[in-house]
Amino acid sequence: MIYRKAILPLGFKANALACGLKKSGKLDLALFYSQNPAKAVCLFTANKIQAAPLKVNKKYLKINKHFKAVIANSGNANCFTGIAGLKDAQDMSLFVAKTLGIKKDAVLVASTGIIGRRLELGKIKNALPQLVKGLSKNGINKAKKAIMTTDTFAKEITVKFNVGGKTVTICGIAKGAGMIAPNLATMLVFIFTDADISPGALKKALKIAAASSFNCITVDGCMSTNDMVILLANAEAKNKLIDTGKNFSVFSKALNTLCLKLAKMIVQDAEGATKFIQIKVENAKTSKEAKQVALSIANSNLFKTAIFASSKNILGRTVAAVGASGVDIKERGLKIKYSPLKKKEVSINISLGRGKHSVIVYTSDLTYEYVKINAEYN
Amino acid sequence: MIYRKAILPLGFKANALACGLKKSGKLDLALFYSQNPAKAVCLFTANKIQAAPLKVNKKYLKINKHFKAVIANSGNANCFTGIAGLKDAQDMSLFVAKTLGIKKDAVLVASTGIIGRRLELGKIKNALPQLVKGLSKNGINKAKKAIMTTDTFAKEITVKFNVGGKTVTICGIAKGAGMIAPNLATMLVFIFTDADISPGALKKALKIAAASSFNCITVDGCMSTNDMVILLANAEAKNKLIDTGKNFSVFSKALNTLCLKLAKMIVQDAEGATKFIQIKVENAKTSKEAKQVALSIANSNLFKTAIFASSKNILGRTVAAVGASGVDIKERGLKIKYSPLKKKEVSINISLGRGKHSVIVYTSDLTYEYVKINAEYN
Repeated sequence: MIYRKAILPLGFKANALACGLKKSGKLDLALFYSQNPAKAVCLFTANKIQAAPLKVNKKYLKINKHFKAVIANSGNANCFTGIAGLKDAQDMSLFVAKTLGIKKDAVLVASTGIIGRRLELGKIKNALPQLVKGLSKNGINKAKKAIMTTDTFAKEITVKFNVGGKTVTICGIAKGAGMIAPNLATMLVFIFTDADISPGALKKALKIAAASSFNCITVDGCMSTNDMVILLANAEAKNKLIDTGKNFSVFSKALNTLCLKLAKMIVQDAEGATKFIQIKVENAKTSKEAKQVALSIANSNLFKTAIFASSKNILGRTVAAVGASGVDIKERGLKIKYSPLKKKEVSINISLGRGKHSVIVYTSDLTYEYVKINAEYN
Repeated sequence: MIYRKAILPLGFKANALACGLKKSGKLDLALFYSQNPAKAVCLFTANKIQAAPLKVNKKYLKINKHFKAVIANSGNANCFTGIAGLKDAQDMSLFVAKTLGIKKDAVLVASTGIIGRRLELGKIKNALPQLVKGLSKNGINKAKKAIMTTDTFAKEITVKFNVGGKTVTICGIAKGAGMIAPNLATMLVFIFTDADISPGALKKALKIAAASSFNCITVDGCMSTNDMVILLANAEAKNKLIDTGKNFSVFSKALNTLCLKLAKMIVQDAEGATKFIQIKVENAKTSKEAKQVALSIANSNLFKTAIFASSKNILGRTVAAVGASGVDIKERGLKIKYSPLKKKEVSINISLGRGKHSVIVYTSDLTYEYVKINAEYN
């Protein structure tokens, strides 16, 4: 069953409040908590400059396999903040652990917002007692908003399915609307499941799911420094351990569905976008080359403005982007088809006539509003 | 001496007229002619999909080393037009040769405009007698306008210098304002010189000049299918043959100056741009990695909108783009400096702290107007 809202699985709680990082006074600090220590799997941006929280989490993931909480703030990315920023991220985690009364490396950290500015740690610290006190099942409905920056709506989804007679739940929330490009962009994704699943299976399932979802979306080709997907599994569903075979398939399929829906929501909320664009590249020699062509199109400003305008130039601009991808395309083998351009959802099929591999990439159009949002954002 | 206008060298003539390819009725067909057969060197786009004129020129350059004319049209790119388009480009060349009464492979061809539409060859053919009849020294002032598409001004420059007591002239005109990205973008550049120069020296000088000019500019990261630089040298200056040594240096330096000035004009005329941005990446391990970082910044929509808005976000967006370049940058070694953002010309210096190589790349900001121009262009 798929629910278009966040329903926390067994044993998870959340809460959020406005601690003052956002000048607007909107929610900017979220806490996610699992009663049971949860297995954690994370994915991080491929950007070579990584924000402090990512570095801290990587360190924690090396020494610890179970986590009880995730603290996330919006309004400040805690990136390009040097050694001081690293200490801030670590302290943020420590303060939460202390307030929760748990061990200090059991709290993962996430930040999103402005780059290059120190975190106002005092504001976060002061807010923690109240944040912990208010933890609840329904707190997810505040938390999903507290991670937003330029997002216009909260991205949330829940999938429930059966594993050997037990109901297993996976719930995901995400933020992201710009600086979106593979692999992982200004995107924070938190996924919680009560499944009892082996660490290997959990990792494998997330990698598979991300490959055709979060790694197949692009808004502006700009890869962020802060992206992260955090998946926590706390085994509270008390199902038979998921490892391989049919049970893994069921879990993996559910996670694929969840990740793809969240990824599509991010593109639907793309900054200034008026259209949702699906680009399918078929008959490529390899999946890699299919993706290379698809992303070359998806990141072409000329292609994106032509879609915005439902312009007849779309053919030429698609052709130019295909050729610019670096893949050795022959004009003769190239076939391009469009769904009607005036609709809100546009599909483009590109057949390369070189092989049997295909990929689908999702993106948005480039509009006046994108420029406006990104010129004025502060 | 540098002249900010086109002055054709000895033995060259040009003309242009409106043959009806542009609905606006503006000039759209240009002819360049050299009395003496001229040595030719050409550079072509790296796009894997290449317009018909490029393919035809490549063929001609294999069988012929001397050319007497270049025919160029705007309004139609004659690209993605299949075998029919190839024949059109060849016929365009043949018709000109016939009208001029010269051999058929002595005319190079260039087109720019809409992609994917057949050329209206009849209109071109009908215009040829008048076009040839009107060839003159001053015709370059019409020709420089006839190659324009979304350009708001004609790009022209002339350099005169001394080679062993003889005055040598190099004159260049260019078109291009969008779909500009290395290597070579929707950019046509025609360079004429009366220098007597060996084919090897001519080729070498153009490669050197293009490397730090046309290959170091980007407007929107979109690589065109039609870009071409054509350099003709007709030896009419009767200087001592330029081959190596000091004379080569003098010629090469003059050509560098000319190409860099033209390249900068293209960026200055970038679609919708309000700012001219110079990005210098220093202390890189290799020139290649310096360029990779510089282009990652120059092609970042978020960086470009921040410059447009003179926004404080510029630091974060530069950092994110540096990290997204793929070069293994360490946060600690990275130093970023800006000139005042509110000015029309902005310089950014990025020191990577990894080595001794540097590069300068030129680009423009991303504005409402860029989206408007590219949404409405047809």
